[in-house]
Order: sequence, then structure tokens, then C-alpha cells
Amino acid sequence: MSSLATPHAETPEQAVRAANRSFYAAFESLDLAQMETIWLQEDWIECVHPGWDLLLGWEEVRESWMRIFANTQRVKIALSSVWAHVEGPLAWVACTEHVTSAFATGFDEVLVQATNVFLLRDGAWRLVVHHASPLPAKPKGTVQ
Amino acid sequence: MSSLATPHAETPEQAVRAANRSFYAAFESLDLAQMETIWLQEDWIECVHPGWDLLLGWEEVRESWMRIFANTQRVKIALSSVWAHVEGPLAWVACTEHVTSAFATGFDEVLVQATNVFLLRDGAWRLVVHHASPLPAKPKGTVQ
Repeated sequence: MSSLATPHAETPEQAVRAANRSFYAAFESLDLAQMETIWLQEDWIECVHPGWDLLLGWEEVRESWMRIFANTQRVKIALSSVWAHVEGPLAWVACTEHVTSAFATGFDEVLVQATNVFLLRDGAWRLVVHHASPLPAKPKGTVQ
Repeated sequence: MSSLATPHAETPEQAVRAANRSFYAAFESLDLAQMETIWLQEDWIECVHPGWDLLLGWEEVRESWMRIFANTQRVKIALSSVWAHVEGPLAWVACTEHVTSAFATGFDEVLVQATNVFLLRDGAWRLVVHHASPLPAKPKGTVQ
């Protein structure tokens, strides 16, 4: 968990942006153990994957990542328009995900708008809400 | 603003649920003045309408409602699976919107999953994040 802690030199916004990057690194890792360190494991956290119904509580959220990871061979996520706001012990990040996935049957490229809410608990910013929704496809730019 | 204030007899969760209902009442009213009382008018609030890009700050959010209201003759929104969680001065609500809209050219019925984040400011729960995304259509139930 130490990688999520807030070093004293960091502003809260920098720490939240780092937590957001850690979330997408865990997503790309396809490693459930890594994803488990990102979320606050409470029964009131929520997650909406693009086009999915609401998932409520860590048990449902964990199972969804298990399914996604089991059905994905590789995923690469580039972020653009990353925007963050901190209000005391809560913060949210809005960002556009450029997701390239490889499945057994081929590739998929989608554009997703995400809102991620983080809660500061024991010195670490933990994910409590992930709401991701499909965006219309756009001409490709130079996204990193 | 008094309609958004928290009466002493209400729990914070009840007050947040009431604020959420007020948001949808303002949406149904198609009245910009009513919608203006719902949002915290800061430059860091965010709004994602289904399939739209991120809107950032009250000016962009206000303009989006102006456009939506100008292009809608009537709208009815029934909510289901309304779920709320309060963390101190911040709270979020997840709910499914069953939206029926009447335009100049006809009717539209859509199912939307929404995450609404509220911030307690001067005794009133004000909307700071609205992220709404399309859900696949489902067989109709008895939704109120």
C-alpha cells in the first residue's frame, strides 16, 4: 500500500493524480492483487463499467475485475484531459480513457469518459467510485 | 434555496436523497432558474451527459442545460435503484434514470445510469458532479 501513500512533498492534487495513474496501471496489469490495493474495500463503493449496470460494494466490484481480466489478453490505456479536484478527504478525477484491448478473438479500441472518486483513508487515496461510459469514436490524435 | 436546506429532523442521507429528487424535479421543469439552484456554481464542477464529452465548470454546465431545455418539449424521469452514501460534507447517489422525452419530432425513451456527487455548502447539498451514461434497453417493469 506504500505506493499509494502521500509523500509530504506532494500536494493533495498530485497525490490524487498519482492514485489515478495507479488505478490505470493496475487495470493494465490485469492483476487482481494489484487492483485490490487501489479500491477501498467497503460495501458502499460503486463501479459502472461502460454499458454495465451499477456494481455496488467491493465483492461485486472485485468480481467484475476478475471477469474483465479473465477475458482480456492485454490492455493498454492512454489518458487525456485528466482533471482533478480535491475537497478535504475526498477528491475526484475526470479523464478520457483511450482503451485498446486484445481478446482471444481480436482487438478492440474504445473511447471512454471516466469519473473516479477517491477517499483519503489512513494516508492513502483509495478509489470509491468509478463511473466509465462510452464516448463516440473520434479521429485519432497524438494521445500519450 | 430553502427547499435544499437540511431540516433538523432529517438524516444526512435523507437530505441527500431529497437533493437528488430536487435535481430531477429541476430537470423535468425544463426551467433553467430552477436548475441553477441545484448546482454549486464553481469552475471545478463537472457534468457528463449520456454520450457527451466532459463539461467543466458552471458556465459550460449551465449552457448544456440551456441547450437541452431549448430542444425538449417535455421530459419525465422515473428513478429506480436509488442508492446514497454520505461521507462527511460529501455524498454521492447512484440511480437509474428512466427518461421519456418529447421533442418537436417525436418521443424518445432511454435508460441511463447516473452518479451524482453532492457537497454540503452553507447547509444545503449542492450538486458538483453529474455523470450519466446510457444503459442497454430492458424489458419494462413497474417503475415509479
